[in-house]
Amino acid sequence: MFLKNCWYVASQASELGRVLMQRWIIGQPVVLFRSESGQPVAMEDRCPHRRAALSKGRLVGDTVQCGYHGMRFDCSGACVAIPGEEQIPPALKARVYPVVQKWHWVWIWMGDPALADEALIPDLRHNDMPGWTVTGGVLTVNANYQLLTDNLLDLTHETFVHAKTIGNAAVAETPMESKIVGNEVHVQRVMRNTPPPPLFKRVRNLTGNIDRWQIIRFQPPSSISIDARGYPTGTEDPEKGLRWFSINSITPINETSCNYYWTITRCFAQDDAQITDLIHNQILATFMEDVDVLEAQQQMIETDAPNRGEISIRADFGSVAARRINQRLIHKEAQGNARKQGAVPSPEELVKAT
Amino acid sequence: MFLKNCWYVASQASELGRVLMQRWIIGQPVVLFRSESGQPVAMEDRCPHRRAALSKGRLVGDTVQCGYHGMRFDCSGACVAIPGEEQIPPALKARVYPVVQKWHWVWIWMGDPALADEALIPDLRHNDMPGWTVTGGVLTVNANYQLLTDNLLDLTHETFVHAKTIGNAAVAETPMESKIVGNEVHVQRVMRNTPPPPLFKRVRNLTGNIDRWQIIRFQPPSSISIDARGYPTGTEDPEKGLRWFSINSITPINETSCNYYWTITRCFAQDDAQITDLIHNQILATFMEDVDVLEAQQQMIETDAPNRGEISIRADFGSVAARRINQRLIHKEAQGNARKQGAVPSPEELVKAT
Amino acid sequence: MFLKNCWYVASQASELGRVLMQRWIIGQPVVLFRSESGQPVAMEDRCPHRRAALSKGRLVGDTVQCGYHGMRFDCSGACVAIPGEEQIPPALKARVYPVVQKWHWVWIWMGDPALADEALIPDLRHNDMPGWTVTGGVLTVNANYQLLTDNLLDLTHETFVHAKTIGNAAVAETPMESKIVGNEVHVQRVMRNTPPPPLFKRVRNLTGNIDRWQIIRFQPPSSISIDARGYPTGTEDPEKGLRWFSINSITPINETSCNYYWTITRCFAQDDAQITDLIHNQILATFMEDVDVLEAQQQMIETDAPNRGEISIRADFGSVAARRINQRLIHKEAQGNARKQGAVPSPEELVKAT
Repeated sequence: MFLKNCWYVASQASELGRVLMQRWIIGQPVVLFRSESGQPVAMEDRCPHRRAALSKGRLVGDTVQCGYHGMRFDCSGACVAIPGEEQIPPALKARVYPVVQKWHWVWIWMGDPALADEALIPDLRHNDMPGWTVTGGVLTVNANYQLLTDNLLDLTHETFVHAKTIGNAAVAETPMESKIVGNEVHVQRVMRNTPPPPLFKRVRNLTGNIDRWQIIRFQPPSSISIDARGYPTGTEDPEKGLRWFSINSITPINETSCNYYWTITRCFAQDDAQITDLIHNQILATFMEDVDVLEAQQQMIETDAPNRGEISIRADFGSVAARRINQRLIHKEAQGNARKQGAVPSPEELVKAT
Repeated sequence: MFLKNCWYVASQASELGRVLMQRWIIGQPVVLFRSESGQPVAMEDRCPHRRAALSKGRLVGDTVQCGYHGMRFDCSGACVAIPGEEQIPPALKARVYPVVQKWHWVWIWMGDPALADEALIPDLRHNDMPGWTVTGGVLTVNANYQLLTDNLLDLTHETFVHAKTIGNAAVAETPMESKIVGNEVHVQRVMRNTPPPPLFKRVRNLTGNIDRWQIIRFQPPSSISIDARGYPTGTEDPEKGLRWFSINSITPINETSCNYYWTITRCFAQDDAQITDLIHNQILATFMEDVDVLEAQQQMIETDAPNRGEISIRADFGSVAARRINQRLIHKEAQGNARKQGAVPSPEELVKAT
Repeated sequence: MFLKNCWYVASQASELGRVLMQRWIIGQPVVLFRSESGQPVAMEDRCPHRRAALSKGRLVGDTVQCGYHGMRFDCSGACVAIPGEEQIPPALKARVYPVVQKWHWVWIWMGDPALADEALIPDLRHNDMPGWTVTGGVLTVNANYQLLTDNLLDLTHETFVHAKTIGNAAVAETPMESKIVGNEVHVQRVMRNTPPPPLFKRVRNLTGNIDRWQIIRFQPPSSISIDARGYPTGTEDPEKGLRWFSINSITPINETSCNYYWTITRCFAQDDAQITDLIHNQILATFMEDVDVLEAQQQMIETDAPNRGEISIRADFGSVAARRINQRLIHKEAQGNARKQGAVPSPEELVKAT
């Protein structure tokens, strides 16, 4: 069960162009491209005629031409040409999904298009901040998307999974403060006067101890931004230390796999390409360590008795809270749909029905 | 659900010899070989003793020796030897399927052997016509066999899938005439004074326009022959143009894959091995383009809501008609079986039962 | 359905050390290692916190540290450390399985630990006999474990599957004597004055005929030892001939695959490393021939109608008897569990419940 009436990342803005690209999102195949004017467009990747994959066809101007029988669909999903036929059955429409480019990524609304509201896109503004430098990518992970939100809401694991880059003993030893704010979860860990982890040293030549912050914000269903700071102890001086945001949004492919979109966006050494490369490669290596742990965890869950409970500890407050928020939103959405299906028909519907 | 009381292609005649060969047909494993006198033989590829794969054994004269415990079965399926034992349990019989070599291929009857009648083999005589030259092969396709019959009954797709060989704009632009003739479907497309597609040019050095015919005949459950002609406009002269039959028969492996047997048989340049090679390679490349489209289509169908409808257009007349014929035949066969199971017992059966 | 209250081989003694090793046993993931004092230890390979695979963590002294959040579990399964937390929830316990090293292998008890009794380990003493030399290994086979016990209880197949090493016509031609002894099955084949099979010749330079014995002992659920002897005809003299035990124990991974532990232990040329190598390689090749047959057989069973019967012959007496013993033990175990679940509560339980 996935939340449908919400925005998911469908692709990085940079990877989308005048080429048909396929992505699977909450179990559905989607074909993505840019119109001639550069607007991102998304359709169900099934031709309404015989369900051929539209992504195997080609772009003809602002239409998608199916690669099988050559039917063409415009950006509204309307069929505008059937080779060799003059009449177009009105039902022959491709499903189109609302898409919006924002915060470095292209977002898709898989639910009721009438409810798609750009204002509901998670606030990940640090991906697009003037004067900040972004690097990032996307990883396919064979694990349920909530294993990733769990992962990002309890960074204790950095000590054990990421000792080569961003983890050290200080992380696991320092308790977190967590709170629920509406539909968001905020988790914070402040480590005073602790040794910097290996990557911080390499990136900013930190030699002595630092004060270190991890300020985590979860926005449902699966966006997590982490305000990470490490300044020489007592200085609170970004100039001498490190500050970046780790921005993460996870899009379910299906129940057992997901696409993990990530960036690191920083406000120091903005034009230093070597630093960008260093951060990119080290964070990618860090996340590949997570993939290894999470894919094994997924296998253990799949092979376990279906309703075997987990034992939670204090550090799980944030991830458990986030799961409950998603559960509540999914439940509410299902109730809304049920109400709609049993609703008193509108006057228009009554007219149609008679 | 497959039709059982019908003939399917089990192998090309040329590939069967004195070696045990395994094929899966409508979900069942079959072992095939030729007897010493050259007759094709087919058995269930499960030893009746412990279900070892007989195809992993070896031929001993006209018997199949199981590779596990050495039992031998003759061409009627009777067990004729059990190593170390003198008595052979009468129930120890391998299932044997009727097989017939005809039209370049070996045909198998997976249903009730009492109903197997050679006269029911689809008429694909052009595969075996004196003075015609045949080339062909077999492809395993990960798609339901009816996606291939759909494909062959609407050649509109040539324009979009096969633009490098046999397709051009003329195909998609010209409407088809279709009719149902008993259990057959006949579809015809006549293109007057149109440019020849690339492969026609290469094969017959056609420079000017041609008159072009595609005369398609579907015989259930899955044989389709296409009489393809391309003569210089107005001449109707095979000597100056091209005429071949594209003969196709598709054997389900299971619900989601099939073996696609194909040939091209021609009545020009019969002894020109270079022309044979050119046609073989270009048609194989053409069919590999279909495989790409059809396997993606199969995935889209499997992942879609189970009963989501398709939107059909005029060009689908032939393929929809063929599907309905198969559906009717399968339904009729199931009814026949049900009647048989509930039938008043014969006197012999009554004697046995008491 | 597997027997749970019994000992299965979890690993060879030689392959277990101070490294976390994963094995799947009757459908469950198990992590294995040796304590600092060399004792084998086995835990469920799922952290009780979030089901991460403990085998991806590391050993810290005699504790397993989870590789995800760093919790540590001692050899009793008790959690002894949670990074950053002072309180340990009492429910946070890893499941520990009884393990015993015996007869060259490490045995695990997957059922009720209270019932684990070392005396129930199958008697495979020839794996650990003073003055005998052992070689062996483990193979993963994609087949139900009972296809292997079937295989080992009817060596008729040696003639057909293993003609290059241990099989010849004499084996299949000579009838077996079989009997049931309590929960064991004993099968014996005595071949008088027969040619030695190829491997016997190579190992012991046998030129003339031999008297040959195969004395097979099945102990449930899946241990089979074979006392194999081949002496020059009429001599009954081990010094001039060959005597070894083929010791086999099969551990189900799940319903369709298993780990096959095997050894050959001999009482001749004990210090001759070349003979050890020869036997090892030839027997491994022999068992790989079985793998090929058994994996195909497994596929044929999986794709067959669920309750299609098999036809048995006299030679199947031993394997059918062994299957029935396992079936009876599994049934009895299930009944015992059912009784336990419906039992009159103990006084302690009554106190707890009120």
